[in-house]
Amino acid sequence: MPAPALALSGQVLPAFLLCSTLLVIKMYVVAVITGQVRLRKKAFANPEDALRHGGPQFCRDDQDVDRCLRAHRNDMETIYPFLFLGLVYSFLQPNPFVAHVHFLLVFLGRMVHTVAYLGKLRAPIRSLAYTLAQLPCASMALQIVWEAARHL
Amino acid sequence: MPAPALALSGQVLPAFLLCSTLLVIKMYVVAVITGQVRLRKKAFANPEDALRHGGPQFCRDDQDVDRCLRAHRNDMETIYPFLFLGLVYSFLQPNPFVAHVHFLLVFLGRMVHTVAYLGKLRAPIRSLAYTLAQLPCASMALQIVWEAARHL
Amino acid sequence: MPAPALALSGQVLPAFLLCSTLLVIKMYVVAVITGQVRLRKKAFANPEDALRHGGPQFCRDDQDVDRCLRAHRNDMETIYPFLFLGLVYSFLQPNPFVAHVHFLLVFLGRMVHTVAYLGKLRAPIRSLAYTLAQLPCASMALQIVWEAARHL
Repeated sequence: MPAPALALSGQVLPAFLLCSTLLVIKMYVVAVITGQVRLRKKAFANPEDALRHGGPQFCRDDQDVDRCLRAHRNDMETIYPFLFLGLVYSFLQPNPFVAHVHFLLVFLGRMVHTVAYLGKLRAPIRSLAYTLAQLPCASMALQIVWEAARHL
Repeated sequence: MPAPALALSGQVLPAFLLCSTLLVIKMYVVAVITGQVRLRKKAFANPEDALRHGGPQFCRDDQDVDRCLRAHRNDMETIYPFLFLGLVYSFLQPNPFVAHVHFLLVFLGRMVHTVAYLGKLRAPIRSLAYTLAQLPCASMALQIVWEAARHL
Repeated sequence: MPAPALALSGQVLPAFLLCSTLLVIKMYVVAVITGQVRLRKKAFANPEDALRHGGPQFCRDDQDVDRCLRAHRNDMETIYPFLFLGLVYSFLQPNPFVAHVHFLLVFLGRMVHTVAYLGKLRAPIRSLAYTLAQLPCASMALQIVWEAARHL
């Protein structure tokens, strides 16, 4: 990280970049798992893929594939906003300890969410993990709105 | 907002951060509404959720849930690019009045889009709101491409 | 691009902004194509749209529309993380040649992916294009994790 960017960030940027980028890598892993489940269950979304892997009858839905797709979609609904909110929040000179708690809750919440989704853990583990990660995101959003409104 | 970040932004960054973060919060609200509709219509995507709320027969599709999911997906297709384009555009030293008009059109277009989608308003209100928000996004994208190409 | 932002970026920011914004515009084109296919095949997702275009029987699924939606969703799974990773990576003072190769591979991979998807090209062209674009994204993610961990 070059000095100027770090100097702007009030020291919490590295922690944000670590948590956020690890979550992006986690999303890539979900995509790889989806592909593996498609191959193992022989359930492809496109006729051209099915043809390559045995025949047109394998262009079909599958419950486990759909589960992977839902997990990935939920990541897009929650982790992508965090990439934006966390980056902006890191430049608002937050208290470092408070900021680290924010990032850690998002990181842990989303990791547990994926494990609970793909592992079919009993309700409401997945929903609680979702909420755990959304609360710090909502907190960061409200702080950004507040700071932005003050400087209009 | 710390002074250095503001100094870089040419004064339009606060307006962008306000509009964009309010749209992220609006997306969070759509997610909450989706959950409420799932509970009220007893239509869950996962067997483990259905079991917790009455039985496996409630793992089923529902037209109103699908509508919420489509509204949320359309937000992901349009608001997420705005988070990126608007942030970069804010650092291109745009005319403040022109920039504010861009941000306001995106904000209003996407708010009306969600109301029209979830409220099942008659066509083409939703499509017009979609187009209203996409035009300033396309404008910002073209200005970024132009500036980036000049500095290659 | 104002001087301060360029000075921070180590000269690779313009190339990143060009590749990333062109990919966002490409996603906008996929959205327009989806709308055109809906109109041509008379296959709408919402009853209110179907009513405006001939009658409630046109609220229905269509294979070609679904294909457009899958292409767009795959873009959201891959191009959105690139918007974040590439921006952060551009501020890590990467070797300009190496950085340009990263951005170009993502750009070419995602362009070919869309052509292969919408053009129904034979497998595994689309999958290879997907992998071609994901490898530099994974490389940027690992470099960000490394730099962030060093500065914790």
